[in-house]
Amino acid sequence: MNSQNDSDMKTAVVLVSGGLDSATALAVAAGNGYACHCLAFDYGQRHRSELAASKKVASTLHAKAHKIVQLDLRSIGGSALTDDNIAVPDAKIADAGNANADTDIPVTYVPARNTVFLSIALGWAEVLHASDIFIGVNAVDYSGYPDCRPEYIAAFENMANLATRATVQGQRVTIQTPLISMRKEDIIRLGTDLGVDYSLTVSCYRATPEGLACGHCDSCHLRRQGFERAGLADPTRYV
Amino acid sequence: MNSQNDSDMKTAVVLVSGGLDSATALAVAAGNGYACHCLAFDYGQRHRSELAASKKVASTLHAKAHKIVQLDLRSIGGSALTDDNIAVPDAKIADAGNANADTDIPVTYVPARNTVFLSIALGWAEVLHASDIFIGVNAVDYSGYPDCRPEYIAAFENMANLATRATVQGQRVTIQTPLISMRKEDIIRLGTDLGVDYSLTVSCYRATPEGLACGHCDSCHLRRQGFERAGLADPTRYV
Repeated sequence: MNSQNDSDMKTAVVLVSGGLDSATALAVAAGNGYACHCLAFDYGQRHRSELAASKKVASTLHAKAHKIVQLDLRSIGGSALTDDNIAVPDAKIADAGNANADTDIPVTYVPARNTVFLSIALGWAEVLHASDIFIGVNAVDYSGYPDCRPEYIAAFENMANLATRATVQGQRVTIQTPLISMRKEDIIRLGTDLGVDYSLTVSCYRATPEGLACGHCDSCHLRRQGFERAGLADPTRYV
Repeated sequence: MNSQNDSDMKTAVVLVSGGLDSATALAVAAGNGYACHCLAFDYGQRHRSELAASKKVASTLHAKAHKIVQLDLRSIGGSALTDDNIAVPDAKIADAGNANADTDIPVTYVPARNTVFLSIALGWAEVLHASDIFIGVNAVDYSGYPDCRPEYIAAFENMANLATRATVQGQRVTIQTPLISMRKEDIIRLGTDLGVDYSLTVSCYRATPEGLACGHCDSCHLRRQGFERAGLADPTRYV
């Protein structure tokens, strides 16, 4: 429980997908005394069990609110996560080692996803008079997604501060990326210190409706490796 | 009908709300030889009859595709257009004349709407390998919305070119705003020259389910004044 009075607290919108990184970002925001309003998206992703995980994570970290916005990205497609005709492959990250941009960005990339999610977060932040938006993007142990890079985040923040009535009236909005330069094992150590229960989180792109992980996709691979390198037991529930 | 071969045509995503401005932007894009993929949003707006108008406009201007994406902005609220508890007022623009930012931006402003719409357009543009996104924003006869200003559009374009796999691979995306410096009467003259049937369009914030305009809101006021100043008959169907 946070002992601060509500009126003293800064307000943040936190993107909480239900995965490991965003749960840690929420713990950082809460630990810094923000009143956290968590946002998740039912966007047609194949791993919808992450939505239940998102709600549980928000609850155990004492978020002030949790909202799931409906948004049909399946109608646009272009990703293994939103198009049933594109399969999620087994992990390739560890043995990639080539510089071809065409193959470096995997089929699980969802076109403009972080831009869409941050944009809706920006709208909610304006309604809430929130000064900050937290997103658990990570530019080290990531999957090669362009919208996880620091230069992208800086450009989004610049745009956001021209986009809304709140910003025209002098209120700045800051995109907070506490994990952006951290390795997966450091994220896991930090979250563990902050009390994140990672058994509640779902990272797997092929998770079952009950939230059991496949153990073999890119996301499972990075997560498992993170726990190993952190020297911590992996609480993930595998199939 | 466009006489160009499909393979010679550049591809554009065009935001087509069903209103006067976006219909004109579509006509400009089509007139410049783009294969136009029109995008509209069922976002919980009270004037949903604009969606039927969007489809008709796209059809009469020979668009290659028309898509309506479901997106629940009502769950965020903060606008007279997405919250039934906030009424759409009668027109104030003509007699405003004060510089208080708090009152200059009307209650019909939807938090971060253009940012959300452009973001989803960006995702679809990537899937389609489209080089351009057209949006009918206008910085002259507009309602004081911050996300219609040239500096905002420039910042969005800058962000967009860091956001996607396509842009990482060297494909640039351009946000086209052909109407941004035009007065309403000039937009109407241009669209009329390009064959836009404005009787199909719905601008009114309080339009009936059949698309009849109230004649009294900001949007109706600007539209009516535009036809008067253009010296053209107003084909709008009023209640």
